[in-house]
Formats: sequence, structure tokens, C-alpha cells
Amino acid sequence: MSSSTFVGNPRRPRVIVFDVNETLSDMSTMPERFVDVGATSPLAGSWFGGLLRDGFALSAAGNAGKFADVGSRLLKAMLHGVQLNRPLDAAVEHIMDGFLRLDVHPDVADGVTALAEIGIRMITLSNGSVGVAEKLLDSAGLLSRFEMLLSVDAVGEWKPAAHAYEYALAQCDVDDPREAMLVAVHPWDIDGASRAGLATAWLNRDGGGYPDYFHAPDLEATSLVRLAQRFGSDVAS
Amino acid sequence: MSSSTFVGNPRRPRVIVFDVNETLSDMSTMPERFVDVGATSPLAGSWFGGLLRDGFALSAAGNAGKFADVGSRLLKAMLHGVQLNRPLDAAVEHIMDGFLRLDVHPDVADGVTALAEIGIRMITLSNGSVGVAEKLLDSAGLLSRFEMLLSVDAVGEWKPAAHAYEYALAQCDVDDPREAMLVAVHPWDIDGASRAGLATAWLNRDGGGYPDYFHAPDLEATSLVRLAQRFGSDVAS
Repeated sequence: MSSSTFVGNPRRPRVIVFDVNETLSDMSTMPERFVDVGATSPLAGSWFGGLLRDGFALSAAGNAGKFADVGSRLLKAMLHGVQLNRPLDAAVEHIMDGFLRLDVHPDVADGVTALAEIGIRMITLSNGSVGVAEKLLDSAGLLSRFEMLLSVDAVGEWKPAAHAYEYALAQCDVDDPREAMLVAVHPWDIDGASRAGLATAWLNRDGGGYPDYFHAPDLEATSLVRLAQRFGSDVAS
Repeated sequence: MSSSTFVGNPRRPRVIVFDVNETLSDMSTMPERFVDVGATSPLAGSWFGGLLRDGFALSAAGNAGKFADVGSRLLKAMLHGVQLNRPLDAAVEHIMDGFLRLDVHPDVADGVTALAEIGIRMITLSNGSVGVAEKLLDSAGLLSRFEMLLSVDAVGEWKPAAHAYEYALAQCDVDDPREAMLVAVHPWDIDGASRAGLATAWLNRDGGGYPDYFHAPDLEATSLVRLAQRFGSDVAS
């Protein structure tokens, strides 16, 4: 798949449903927060992967944890035995606070603006809290571009459970799920949305491979600007 | 929790249901296989974490992949763009082959023998295949100690989904789930089994912390030998 190839033939969506963590937010500053407290930077990747693994495990077992609770409590368990330069609770707080100080990726402002200008409605749907999405988009001056910010907290099941996407469609009055498009960097999110009937676009900023046990995206793009171009925006990338 | 503290007061189980990957098998040789093919050893941890994350995501979305398929296909996606010293398919095969050449942890032979000698029935229940468990236990000379080897492949849902544990109980004719004890190193497995009504023992070989969004184990032990001692074995640890 190239950056401008339709795998299927998705219609221009009425609404784009954006994932937030890593899709809009740039989490590359999180490893520094681990170093700040005396831990090592690679622990950041293990922790975020573990957060998703454990959240999905809870969902698979029919339960759900709040993203921030799973994140902070897993962090506490993982920092157990690490020589920190401050008390454990303060270290956890410092790292979790990083979520509230993330920037958007460099392509997000132009991409979101271009999508808004060609009349595509936009919302967010996160496994994290509405507050984190709001802070992120407000800091970037993009909050007004979004019609609403949603969290699975209102559903009690994390994406990729079908109910999460169904909830988002109901909130923005979309009856035909194919009229909505989920945009995410995470293959499991593409998979879940696709199984729930939404069109999907995989944002592949780093040229990675897509695991083929997940439903393939309808569309793949290297940036949000490129995605907007596919739907008729003439903004330069 | 110390290594010999009952958190609750579990009865001596009629049957122990063992998780296999990392609980019985020592996966510390897997990073070498990544180095063998020209990748870096830390990728091993990201890959195994990602394998679980994606398998649980599929389960949360109501689907299931085979462990070996998820493992090999995720590996293929992750090795995309890595400079390997052999063709991609050969690299994936070399790494996946590592699952068939694992040893058990040092405490497993004495622990399993001690548990058998005090008359506790033992089975395995893995998200992986029966073949991998069989090869592991056969190589260690322990296969005859186990009454049966089970895989979630027969269920179509991965642990920690409740059906997986219910299937195991049905296979070994246990009507009261509290008469069976799930033994695992992975907190999500303890959590799922606990929610399904089984007694649980968390094998904590490395002194790590337990994330408190998961149901707590009934019992924690630093080795299988210690666990056997809790149930009356007099084998030395």
C-alpha cells in the first residue's frame, strides 16, 4: 500500500472519528519523564504497551478499567524495585502528568484544518479521558474544529469492542456506519472499527507493517494532510 | 504479600491449571533469536508484549487469532524495514522456532514433581498451542506428570475470557471452580481465572509488583517448589 492508495473504495466520510493517543498526540516526550524520575527511557514503551495489553485483557474478560487508573497503577507495579529519585507516588504522578502536556504531531494542525475546510465533521473517540483530548486540542488551538470529544468511559468497554464505535455513531447521529471513518495509527483500532462497519484510514507515519490478522484499512496515509488531499483538499503537504 | 502468605484462605486444590508461556517456560532465550537474524534483542520484549496486546484486542472485539499466527504475522510487520541477514520469512521462522526449543524454569521440575507426589492433579491451559506445551514438558521429562494439555484453540477465545477457564474445568470434571487453582506469572490470567471463580496462585519469580486493577491472587509464591510446600510437600527449595 502506498500513501495515496485506496485499498477499497471508501466514500468521502460525513464524519471522521479520530483516535487520540498517538494518533493525534505525539507521545515521544513520555520517555523523558521516566528519566526525570530516575527510571530508564525504554520502560516507557513497555509501560504503554502493557497499559493497552492490560486494558484489552480486562475488556476481553468482560470488565473495564479507566485508562488513567490502569496507566498509573501499572506504572506503580512496574516501578516497584526501581531506584527512583523521589517517592513512588510522586514519580507516578510526574509521569502521568505527561499526558496533559503532549503536543499534537506536526501534520495534525494542517490536516485537521484542511479537513474542516472541505466540510468534513470531526470528533474524537479515546480509550483515555475526554479531559486529556480537550487539553491536547486546546493547546494546539484546534479544539473548535471538533464537534465533540468522546471517551469509552461512557460505554464501559474499551475500543476495539464494537459498543465503543456504536456509541460514537449514535452520538453524532450517523445511521449508516460506512458514512463514518475511523482514523488511527493503531491497527487494533482499525480492526475493531472495520468489524463495527465503519470505513477506516490507517495513519502510518513511520512506514511500519500492518499485521494481517487484523482487518485491513480501507485507506492508508502517511499524514493527516495526505488524508485530507484524498478527500479533495488542495493544501500542500 | 510475602512469598508464603495466603491472601485469602484457599483450600488445597484438587487440580492445578497451569499457564504455559513464561509460567512454565523460560523465554529468556528468545531475544538471542532476534540477534541471530540481525535485529536487536529489545525487540523481543516489544514483540511478545504486542502479541498479547493484539490477541487480547481481537478477543475484546469478539474474535480470536491463533497464537502462532498472531505471533508470526506481528513479527513480520515489526521486522518490516529492519536490515535482516536473511529473507524476512526465514527470519520469522527462525524466531518462531524458538518456542519449540524453550526450557522450563529451574524451579519447575522439582515443583511439579513435588505437587504430583502429594497427589494434586495437574493440567495446562495455554493461549498457545498444545504442541508447544507438549514439546516443552516432554523435553523436561515432565509430560507424564500432567493429566492433560489444553489450549484455548478449542474455545475460540483467549484467556482471560471466562469461557477459556470454564472449558478447562469441564475437561477435568471439576464442578466447583474453587476446587481448581490457576497458577500463572501473568496478572491478567490470575484476574480472569479469579473472575471465573477459580482459586489462584501468582508465581512471582522476579519480585515484581501486582497491578491492583486486577483481582488479587489468593496466594503468591516465588517458585513452584514454594507453592508445593504450601500444600504440604516437604521438598527443599
